[in-house]
Amino acid sequence: MNNFGIAIHGGAGTILKSEMTPEKETAYTNALTNAVDAGYAVLETGGTSLLAVEAAIIELENCPLFNAGKGAVFNSAGQHEMDASIMDGATLNAGAIAAVRNLKNPIVLANKILQHSDHILMIGNGAIQFAEQFKIKFESDEYFHDEYRYQQWQNVKGTASFQLDHSKDRPYLGTVGAVALDQHGNLAAGTSTGGMTNKKFGRVGDSPIIGVGNYANNKTCAISCTGSGEYLMRAVSAYDISCLMEYKGLSLEAAAEEAIVHRLTAIGGDGGIVGMDAAGNIVMTFNCEGMYRACRNARERVVRIYK
Amino acid sequence: MNNFGIAIHGGAGTILKSEMTPEKETAYTNALTNAVDAGYAVLETGGTSLLAVEAAIIELENCPLFNAGKGAVFNSAGQHEMDASIMDGATLNAGAIAAVRNLKNPIVLANKILQHSDHILMIGNGAIQFAEQFKIKFESDEYFHDEYRYQQWQNVKGTASFQLDHSKDRPYLGTVGAVALDQHGNLAAGTSTGGMTNKKFGRVGDSPIIGVGNYANNKTCAISCTGSGEYLMRAVSAYDISCLMEYKGLSLEAAAEEAIVHRLTAIGGDGGIVGMDAAGNIVMTFNCEGMYRACRNARERVVRIYK
Repeated sequence: MNNFGIAIHGGAGTILKSEMTPEKETAYTNALTNAVDAGYAVLETGGTSLLAVEAAIIELENCPLFNAGKGAVFNSAGQHEMDASIMDGATLNAGAIAAVRNLKNPIVLANKILQHSDHILMIGNGAIQFAEQFKIKFESDEYFHDEYRYQQWQNVKGTASFQLDHSKDRPYLGTVGAVALDQHGNLAAGTSTGGMTNKKFGRVGDSPIIGVGNYANNKTCAISCTGSGEYLMRAVSAYDISCLMEYKGLSLEAAAEEAIVHRLTAIGGDGGIVGMDAAGNIVMTFNCEGMYRACRNARERVVRIYK
Repeated sequence: MNNFGIAIHGGAGTILKSEMTPEKETAYTNALTNAVDAGYAVLETGGTSLLAVEAAIIELENCPLFNAGKGAVFNSAGQHEMDASIMDGATLNAGAIAAVRNLKNPIVLANKILQHSDHILMIGNGAIQFAEQFKIKFESDEYFHDEYRYQQWQNVKGTASFQLDHSKDRPYLGTVGAVALDQHGNLAAGTSTGGMTNKKFGRVGDSPIIGVGNYANNKTCAISCTGSGEYLMRAVSAYDISCLMEYKGLSLEAAAEEAIVHRLTAIGGDGGIVGMDAAGNIVMTFNCEGMYRACRNARERVVRIYK
């Protein structure tokens, strides 16, 4: 099989060239390149799609440009509460965490749950207790402090602005994700996020929900979503793409177009996905101004920001 | 519209007539009858399907025979951590909570989230903070103490038996749910559970996940699931039924059969659903020995336990 490959995203939303500096553009491009290359290196040497997805997401979580791991947004209490999920298209096994704090790489714990637990979703301190069985890296609150994110929070602190889904400065921009097809023909998908700036009430979005923010099935596709979480949840977007392929016979590209550009838009949501099918086809589909995204296979490496 | 109606469940699994006493059978039958009548009374007087679902589930939550509200199982710390969700088929609005304690009726808080928040899923203490804005009933730990549930926990305490999904004494039996079609032609679905006896690590199952344990859409159906949560999550069962109807053109009955009896069984899961479509058709489908269930419309009231 030489149709293996990987696609990643670093969030979708109002990303306008007019608001970018050349320095920022270069920084994003470099970060996306590093992440897609880290995942591709795993695939190239025969590694699994699960490990490739994990490797790419670790890079994105470690980069403060994205809203996951270091760079995760502040919640209303000034904390970093993170969500992540990962799914194995060969077995339908999955692991996910919600509202966890101080984990350097949430995607690593999601993968531990996939590998070592009969459960799929663990939350809060319970998830942290599970993590303590493994050599998982924890970091202090200071590690997660990013001045740009802090200012974003200061701008909305004390207001109800987690609701401003339609504002230009989208409080949820920057969720990361990856999908991969390995040389063994197996698909995997992973997603990781800090959620929404100033989120309250233990709000959990789409990212840790299997079938919503993340889904993988060798029979159809691997999908990682980003965007307005509550709308993706109502639309069950990741599994929607899989069903459009399996039950309606659409191609990955047509299914992603239908689910995101038509159906998600119709209910008022915005966002995007990266997806792969078992033949190695890659899509990077979104219904908004831009999506930080990259993909790589034997033929090419593509890194893009705008439409 | 006189095709309105309601269907409810109180959990599916190994329910054998040989292990029942006539007294227990009568108690379950009465409890199911009370709940389905409470929901039907709302519909009959022109109330919404959301309120009918809530009314039926409140009855089931208040009854210690079922694993929700009073009667919720003990987790590994000896606590009652409850999950619930509700969805409006007319608007696709939804509300859900996970890992909440001391709420008398978790379904009521899920419905408050649906009505009053842009968020869908709130967890733990965050959800409780949200609840404090409303007149929501809290109860002490003692209220939730049930001797039968306590003995169930004592039998497995200190073991890893939350994993015993295939044991006869299924640790998750008793999740409750309801679906309804009202006289205005709107569908709704709700689900509520205490999860698995002895669950650890902040485990959350399918019940509070929109598209998995619960889904409603006027275009297709309203579904509430019960069973082995992690398998329902992998199968995205509730939305699977909707997709089989919308994309493959199956009837509600054929879609439920395909999703539960074929697809859920194929991956090793067991459980069941109650479902309604916009024409008022009712299904109560399961792939195991029994499901506590009842339905009522203008023509009949049915209350059943075994296959």
